[in-house]
Order: sequence, then C-alpha cells, then structure tokens
Amino acid sequence: MVSAIIVAAGKGTRMGPSVDKMFLEVHGCPVVAHTWRAFDRSNHVDELVLVVRDGLQSSFSELAEKYKFNKPHHFVTGGAQRQDSVWNGLQALAAASEIVLIQDGARPCTSAELITDTITAARETGAAVAAQRVTDTIKQSIDGKYVTHTLDRELLWAVQTPQTFRVEIIRRALAEVRIRGVQVTDDTAACELIGQKVRLVLGKRPNPKVTMPEDLAMLELLLSGIPGPP
Amino acid sequence: MVSAIIVAAGKGTRMGPSVDKMFLEVHGCPVVAHTWRAFDRSNHVDELVLVVRDGLQSSFSELAEKYKFNKPHHFVTGGAQRQDSVWNGLQALAAASEIVLIQDGARPCTSAELITDTITAARETGAAVAAQRVTDTIKQSIDGKYVTHTLDRELLWAVQTPQTFRVEIIRRALAEVRIRGVQVTDDTAACELIGQKVRLVLGKRPNPKVTMPEDLAMLELLLSGIPGPP
Repeated sequence: MVSAIIVAAGKGTRMGPSVDKMFLEVHGCPVVAHTWRAFDRSNHVDELVLVVRDGLQSSFSELAEKYKFNKPHHFVTGGAQRQDSVWNGLQALAAASEIVLIQDGARPCTSAELITDTITAARETGAAVAAQRVTDTIKQSIDGKYVTHTLDRELLWAVQTPQTFRVEIIRRALAEVRIRGVQVTDDTAACELIGQKVRLVLGKRPNPKVTMPEDLAMLELLLSGIPGPP
Repeated sequence: MVSAIIVAAGKGTRMGPSVDKMFLEVHGCPVVAHTWRAFDRSNHVDELVLVVRDGLQSSFSELAEKYKFNKPHHFVTGGAQRQDSVWNGLQALAAASEIVLIQDGARPCTSAELITDTITAARETGAAVAAQRVTDTIKQSIDGKYVTHTLDRELLWAVQTPQTFRVEIIRRALAEVRIRGVQVTDDTAACELIGQKVRLVLGKRPNPKVTMPEDLAMLELLLSGIPGPP
C-alpha cells in the first residue's frame, strides 16, 4: 500500500502574514487543489493524509467535494516546523502502508510520472527525491557579502517533492531528528542522519513551489500545459 | 569611463543546433535586443562591445537601426569558449575604460538598477556580480544518482550577469586563466584565481537566461512588467 502526505500547513510568511498560499487561485482553482488532484488521480497512490492548519479542515473538505476528489483521505494538524508536520502525518498512515510520498501542498505542477518514478526508486533504494540539475552558477558566501568560492555545478541538484520513502525508513530517520533535536530542511536530509542512501529522480518538467506572489503568474503558465479541472 | 561587453556569440546547444537563441522573439523583439536596450538606456554606461558570431554583424547592425540604439557600439567575433569571447571583447575596449560590465546577451530582464549597483560595487571592491539567494534545497551528488550531502542553503547564491570589474582586474584574471589553461564557468571565478574579492550584488527581480525553448514563455511574462519598445 502507498500513502501520500500532502503538507499544507505552511504559514508562508514570504507571502505576507494574512495570506494562506494554499488557497491562492491559479489556473482556475486553489494551489493546493492542483496538488491534491495530481495525487488523487495517480493510480499508484492508495490513500492521502493532508496536514493542515488547525481550523481549516472544513475548507479542505469543501475542496474535496467541489473538485470530486475520490481517494480516501484524512486530515491531521500541522506542527511547529515542517518536520513536525510530517511527523504528525506519519502517525496517521494506514497500518498496511509500505511506501509514503511526502509532498509540498504549494507545489502544484508535480506530474503523474514523477509520482510514479519516485515510488519505484523508493521501493528499490528506500528513499528517493524529485530533483533537477542546477543550471545557475552557484557561489558559496560565508558572510553574504563576498564570494567564498564557486561550487562545481556538475555536482549540484535542486531537490523538490515528492520525497518518497519506505515507511519504516522515514519513521526511523525522523525519530533520529527528534532525538537529536536538530532541524532539517527537507525529509531526505533526515535520511543522511541515519546513513540511508537517497536516490535522485530526475523531473523532466518544472515543478516549482509557490513562495512569493510573483510565482503565481509562472505557475499559471505551467499549469495551462497540464490537464486541468474537468 | 564605463564599458559593457554583451556576450551574444553563444551557440546555445540546448535550444537545438539550428537555433540562435539571441534572435528568438519575445515580447515583441529578439531576446538580445531587450538586453542591448537595457544597456543602451543606462546613463552609467558609455560604450558597448557586442561579441557576436562571425557573419552575424550585419544582423546586429540591423537591430541597432530598427530599435534606435544610440550608444557607441562595436562588434567583435566570439571565441571557442565563453572566456575566449570575453577576452576578445576586452581587447576592444576604449583606452579610457576603467569599469567593464560583462553581460549575457541571452539575459534580457536585467534592470537599470542592477547595472548601476554592480558598477558601484565594482568601483569599491574591484569585482562584483549580480546574485540572488538560492531558494531550492541543494544537494551534492558525486555520481549523479545518489545524494552525497545537503548543502547549507543559507550560504548559497545563484550568480547571473552583469559581472562587473575594474578593467585591469578582469584583464589580469583572464590572463591568468589563459596561462593556466583552465576553464571557468563565469568571469568572477577567474578573479578567485588571482585572489581578488568579489562582491555579491543582490538583484531584486528575476533575471533569468534563455536556455531552453520553454524559458521563453516565462520571459514573456517577466518582460511584460518592464517598459518595452517605445
């Protein structure tokens, strides 16, 4: 059995304090509805867990009704940090769940193919992450003012979601994070703590996350190339 | 005196062998005309050197006429690598030139403000580069299959152009590159070879480069927010 956790509890402070970026309209429906639809339609995903802000469960239920999302789903409440939200989501998985995809709710262009490919890679390796080659030249700077050195671009990958795992592996990795009291930027970084290999899965199409208001126009453009609401 | 070298000789292999990305139309005119216009209009730039593919000089002259670019400009021929093209451009600067901006011809959204800010920083430090914080999580992978480790995103900057220098500094840095026979991904990397500090100059707006055909739609969108042809 394959589960997906959609993390949709972000406060999205870069959008301004009063904006919930999950509900911003783009290409005809809220950002998070596009994300949800991609997983609802996947033949390889059996159940969904949506991690949402407390008090917003009914807004999400309305989305499911409006857009006719049929796949079994339930809601859990987000935590203080992203890693806490994911942890809460993991507690809610069906007992039979073997593979779990963790997906940013604010990443609405994730393709069916990418979902499937990360599942395949996670079955093989235990952990996998959607990634794309970095095309910019990347410099490191210790003080944020002067370049410290140039990184070798050939070795760099930008990672996205889904980040997909065998359930027991991500449970163990995030338990380690909690024991050590560290913060991780993403779920595969937790795997590095327990020595678990993470497979890079090349995404063929752009798969950006809504972070700033100006991202919406680009998402509109990208989503207009993806089959939309029926 | 301030000069700008616009590097417009790229073969752009990612666009396909027969496409010269400089002449792709976006928001009403060729990509390179947008770039040229930004520098033509800057009050802080005195002359332009365009590095172009041999045989294309007349096509570029037609652009200047069509779009009424008034600033003194001349053409030089591109070299085998980007660093050779820049080297050729440096040979063509006016003798009185103290500061030189090096700009990708395929980066049409560069703002007047960014041009000015890199000139100021180059006067102070000797070398400066337009940069933006990296927003993606970046992983390093030695084999391109598995994650080796996660980089600290707080220390990472994506660099663009203009890359701006005191003329004698970039001449010395690129001479060192030629003596050592190395390849550098960008002109500020050459500065690292001679121990020259490089100042990061934060760009406030997106400043992407045309690399793939699908970039054009996003550029169209960005350019529609910038004052266009008169």
